[in-house]
Amino acid sequence: MENNIEEAKQSIISKAPPLGGGGGSASIAVFAPATVANVVCGFDVLGFAVNEPGDEVVMRMTNTPGITISKITGDNGRLPLNPLKNTVSVSVQHYLNSIDRTDVGVDIELHKKMPIGSGLGSSSASTVAGLFAIKTLMGDETDSSTLLPFAMKGEEMACGHGHADNVAPALMGGFVLIRSYEPLDVVRLPHPPGLWCAIVFPDVDVPTREARQIIRNKINMKDAVTQWGNIAGLVSGLFMQDIDLIGRSMQDVLVEPVRSMLIPDFYYMREMAMELGAVSFGISGSGPSVFAFTKNEQTARRVTAKLQQHLTKIGIGSYTYVSTINDKGPRVIG
Amino acid sequence: MENNIEEAKQSIISKAPPLGGGGGSASIAVFAPATVANVVCGFDVLGFAVNEPGDEVVMRMTNTPGITISKITGDNGRLPLNPLKNTVSVSVQHYLNSIDRTDVGVDIELHKKMPIGSGLGSSSASTVAGLFAIKTLMGDETDSSTLLPFAMKGEEMACGHGHADNVAPALMGGFVLIRSYEPLDVVRLPHPPGLWCAIVFPDVDVPTREARQIIRNKINMKDAVTQWGNIAGLVSGLFMQDIDLIGRSMQDVLVEPVRSMLIPDFYYMREMAMELGAVSFGISGSGPSVFAFTKNEQTARRVTAKLQQHLTKIGIGSYTYVSTINDKGPRVIG
Repeated sequence: MENNIEEAKQSIISKAPPLGGGGGSASIAVFAPATVANVVCGFDVLGFAVNEPGDEVVMRMTNTPGITISKITGDNGRLPLNPLKNTVSVSVQHYLNSIDRTDVGVDIELHKKMPIGSGLGSSSASTVAGLFAIKTLMGDETDSSTLLPFAMKGEEMACGHGHADNVAPALMGGFVLIRSYEPLDVVRLPHPPGLWCAIVFPDVDVPTREARQIIRNKINMKDAVTQWGNIAGLVSGLFMQDIDLIGRSMQDVLVEPVRSMLIPDFYYMREMAMELGAVSFGISGSGPSVFAFTKNEQTARRVTAKLQQHLTKIGIGSYTYVSTINDKGPRVIG
Repeated sequence: MENNIEEAKQSIISKAPPLGGGGGSASIAVFAPATVANVVCGFDVLGFAVNEPGDEVVMRMTNTPGITISKITGDNGRLPLNPLKNTVSVSVQHYLNSIDRTDVGVDIELHKKMPIGSGLGSSSASTVAGLFAIKTLMGDETDSSTLLPFAMKGEEMACGHGHADNVAPALMGGFVLIRSYEPLDVVRLPHPPGLWCAIVFPDVDVPTREARQIIRNKINMKDAVTQWGNIAGLVSGLFMQDIDLIGRSMQDVLVEPVRSMLIPDFYYMREMAMELGAVSFGISGSGPSVFAFTKNEQTARRVTAKLQQHLTKIGIGSYTYVSTINDKGPRVIG
């Protein structure tokens, strides 16, 4: 986190007006990463960041108070340029309001470098990139995690729910537990260095709102006990650097049985991934992306290749990503 | 664990027949500790052992195949001398059957040094003491955790349910997670060295079976998410040695609201304990014992003293115990 802030400061020193200033021509480009939320047994409380994909925001200080969005690329026209309706500008505005800088004017370019509606925290990546950009431009050196409430405002707009399991890891990097929402209590978890993640996004439409709605409200205590045994096992495995324990613990008896119905050949893909040596396999966020943990890069690449091959065979396009866990979160790229 | 086995072996070398033998006059006395199961947010999956109270078993090899119970003290006549009905002898018999030593004869004395029906794993302590005694007498050097399935047989008889959240910590010592029952997967968790436990047993009757029956079968997904955020936080706190995180995480929105009704002045006692500096407060097992975690011995002693004083005032007798977490589990005492 510290490194990112230092990096960000270095990057704007040459072109910026005095830090904290509101006018001039300072500009910054920020990348923020995709994230895998839920992580199989951690519905609504766990998430981690990956190295790719992710979104980019270019932010320029302007002389007119208020926020404009001059350009969005990579969204096929799906995202609003209206700053009152875009999650990036809305959360940036919340941030500026909170520090009493409604005098500040910025223009935003959003470059979507990852698919929308993929279950990989697409809106979170954009929001976090925007917030990290404005924070850096304003010379705000507090820890990035202080941006979490503003990022959650963006999530509320995008998904109808102020969840933090995508925005927290996108913002803080690494593996993150949202222990509690009221009050907000976020814990950064360690992870084994050799853990790789294989992600496949089958290009079918699973809107987050609908994916939430099919989750049952009433569940069996017995299933809940199974689930919290597993999340406790997963957290233990992360601390113990025990990838096998992590794998054994990544079972979801509550959400996956329902959400998997919206994902083509989910169980067949799981079988393939496990046979190829994955230690776990599950849905990323509310899907349709799926992910596997593996013990090395080679296995991760084999998994993405084979799953993509299968999806192609059944007529479904897909995107694949292979990554370790991204411990940095957002970073200045220009 | 290794130390215990070594200790046990040293203790029987002088008096025993050849290790693994079935006849002769070898005898051994074993102590096994009380345990706190559930640990507030870990219903059915978490437990830890304490230094006191606990039960003692004296076991003597006899020349007649089979198990006899010659004496039980401290139970006010509540426990059966019939070896087919006593959890200690039943689990010892399971163990002997499993190693094909039905030729072995032993006599058991059970000395209850802790209250029955207290929610402190009374039957588990007896069962574990018996199993550790027979294992040691038989010269069995495998890890104590291998006794877990036999101990669970005893629990099944005592409580109508083969749970492991008392027997596992009684057997293995320390803080234990039962990640899964099928297959059985037990994880030993670390804990901060400075964590103290204050226990108060209000002497009222809360039978385990009934306490289980008042738990709802259907629960809200929202409450379950709160619960698994908390168990993940508790496990994180144990690994991070973060006693404040442990405290914040020890909240139970599912079981405590129901079971606390069977415990006199539960919420008043909680308020007292927290005001005295406890970091958490909750029900031990299915109650009626309650326990608090504290950051030092002095606070733990203040909590037990004040709670006992209050219970006396409302006409309820009580027993109190102050302990760190017991990392050893059962031990040979003679």
